[in-house]
Amino acid sequence: MSEPIFEIRTRASDSQARTGTLKLANGEVQTPAFVPLATRGSVKTLEPRDVEALGYEMVLGNTFHLYLTPGQQQIREYGGLGEFMRWKRPIITDSGGFQLFSMGHGSVADEIKGRNRSGAGAGNTTNGAILSISEEGVRFRSYVDGAEHFMAPETSMEVQAALRSDIALAFDECTPFHVTRDYTAHSTERTHRWLERCLTWHEQNGPSDQMIYGIVQGGVEQDLRVASAETIAASRCGGIAIGGSLGRDKAQMNAVVGWTTRALDRSAVERPRHLLGVGDIDDLLIGVGQGIDTFDCAMPTRLARHGVAIVPDPESRWRVDLAKGRWRGSQEPIMEGCPCPACSTGFTRGYIHYAAKAGETTGSRLLTLHNLSYIQRLMADLRDAIDAGTLTQTTAAFSAGASPSS
Amino acid sequence: MSEPIFEIRTRASDSQARTGTLKLANGEVQTPAFVPLATRGSVKTLEPRDVEALGYEMVLGNTFHLYLTPGQQQIREYGGLGEFMRWKRPIITDSGGFQLFSMGHGSVADEIKGRNRSGAGAGNTTNGAILSISEEGVRFRSYVDGAEHFMAPETSMEVQAALRSDIALAFDECTPFHVTRDYTAHSTERTHRWLERCLTWHEQNGPSDQMIYGIVQGGVEQDLRVASAETIAASRCGGIAIGGSLGRDKAQMNAVVGWTTRALDRSAVERPRHLLGVGDIDDLLIGVGQGIDTFDCAMPTRLARHGVAIVPDPESRWRVDLAKGRWRGSQEPIMEGCPCPACSTGFTRGYIHYAAKAGETTGSRLLTLHNLSYIQRLMADLRDAIDAGTLTQTTAAFSAGASPSS
Repeated sequence: MSEPIFEIRTRASDSQARTGTLKLANGEVQTPAFVPLATRGSVKTLEPRDVEALGYEMVLGNTFHLYLTPGQQQIREYGGLGEFMRWKRPIITDSGGFQLFSMGHGSVADEIKGRNRSGAGAGNTTNGAILSISEEGVRFRSYVDGAEHFMAPETSMEVQAALRSDIALAFDECTPFHVTRDYTAHSTERTHRWLERCLTWHEQNGPSDQMIYGIVQGGVEQDLRVASAETIAASRCGGIAIGGSLGRDKAQMNAVVGWTTRALDRSAVERPRHLLGVGDIDDLLIGVGQGIDTFDCAMPTRLARHGVAIVPDPESRWRVDLAKGRWRGSQEPIMEGCPCPACSTGFTRGYIHYAAKAGETTGSRLLTLHNLSYIQRLMADLRDAIDAGTLTQTTAAFSAGASPSS
Repeated sequence: MSEPIFEIRTRASDSQARTGTLKLANGEVQTPAFVPLATRGSVKTLEPRDVEALGYEMVLGNTFHLYLTPGQQQIREYGGLGEFMRWKRPIITDSGGFQLFSMGHGSVADEIKGRNRSGAGAGNTTNGAILSISEEGVRFRSYVDGAEHFMAPETSMEVQAALRSDIALAFDECTPFHVTRDYTAHSTERTHRWLERCLTWHEQNGPSDQMIYGIVQGGVEQDLRVASAETIAASRCGGIAIGGSLGRDKAQMNAVVGWTTRALDRSAVERPRHLLGVGDIDDLLIGVGQGIDTFDCAMPTRLARHGVAIVPDPESRWRVDLAKGRWRGSQEPIMEGCPCPACSTGFTRGYIHYAAKAGETTGSRLLTLHNLSYIQRLMADLRDAIDAGTLTQTTAAFSAGASPSS
């Protein structure tokens, strides 16, 4: 199999935005792209054929959860996560660091990026705990059965090799927002050393068609972020992810991402960039303009399971909570003119409200389809706009409440 | 709209089996047919388009649950249950009697037909209670909010008129297995009187394109069952359902159904027959031979949500429990050669096991598709066999472990 590569097609003249193609072991991904979560080996409520029919080309699997159950050995025997979950297209796996450190930092995980970023992880880590963090790696207790485990950079790479993801993320310490500058600085440096260990392990043992992304850390400190971006860019990694604390609010997040991608723009080698755990509509609009190529986020799928639909309404943060009493009996469509499987079948806000209240999972499925359809169409429009040189106008239209095209 | 009718196409020469077509307000149903449950307005984990793609022509909605929430007024405003849940084909609604009396008779409901027949109802009736049963009707407390309600035969018909089901069931008292012969006899006579009230209400107020089925009661007493069948057959109802206690085991159930359908065979007017809450594979094979035209049962959909797949293995009652530890890591297909969406995508028993343990609803969905596909193909084969005059051989083959054809 040929080496995975990233080809840039178009660069916007008035922003950092670009379109491109990730050519990976299991297929191509047109960028900028949103990557739905298949945290534990399924995009919740959907089959792989549904995700494919929506137009998605890549999903994200979670190394930490899949390491604990069913375990790397079992997934290796199936031939990898894609074979196991019957998803034939590319997969990106995170390193496990985020969930692991969320467990250790306790409720502080909720602070990262100013909100709870990990739906699946947070609810299940109650019995787990970090026992120690050292240069070597992290010792922790499993939330599944209380057993002790040790995860080092090499372990994360080994698990991701077993998962046979197209893109593996290097193991990083995901520092929370509230720690000192000193802690963040030392942690970021350790993350850089861990990246070297990840790359070394992968070069010796990993699948050659698996791409490794290093992770830029540095918290909300501009100099640390820039230094981290430069260090990662100078490494032998195939791509670059932006992780860790992105600040207390969206303004700070935009600043942190901007420092990072501008530093990356100055680097000699062009690499694909992934923004970890970010995917609100406004974040996507801004992130694309800042030169982010891929995004993952629990938002569209998790909100769907709580009865929240994505709608073209910036005033309400592009969200309408159909579980609220005001939607009881409503005959309004979920979203006027939406071509998604739920809206085009004529499901009403009142039906979704009822299903959410009655606990009928069909309702969660319908909103998952709607929300993911919305985001996929938005990303397709953004790609087209970059190629057409009209991203500024398109972004402005979306920011003013325009609907994605069908 | 034309009056609903039932046309018989072929009668088997060596059994009571027949094929036919129910021509209903919202379309046709080829019989014998299995009717999946859409208890609370969705076939759990599926969309209507999924149910349609499997080949099903009718689903069953539950009057009792839908009466309590979202309520008849709301569903009437949507134009009926089909409009509300976006199912364009026929719907049969039960009368509410079974769930209502299950609540009153408490755990005795589990005894009816020798097992727990109502998955959705049983788990949700803890706070509900019957307050009184009289000739007029039933007073009860809602399990939803504790409010007092009164349901009479007329109420049930009014609710079902609001639901605009193609087939409505008359309101009956569903007597449990353990009561005295005297209680059963008096209850059955009251059910007959309630049928008259249902028919009268419907003739004056109901939709003319809605078919009403009377319900044969009589417990496990042959003379009561035969008399009830004759009474219902002599009424002005459009079809006949067989309800109530069918005995302590399958042998007794087969006897009860046989007494009933033989009595119906002697009646002057031919009507479609529905066997309530029965749908194990062996029950379907025997029931079709006894001249049953439609069946409904929670089995395929409820078992799916517990990790149980239907397989062509009579020794294990056509079931394999994939939630059991022995399937951990299994690379066996759910069912060899099965053309259903789950099997044809290559999902393994090990994946389904994992999904069941991890609580991933995608696994429930996959097994729901598999189980419903299996039963739909079985019924199609039985219909073909009746038309071809080979039902005896086909039934024998299925009883010996043959797979339904694709």
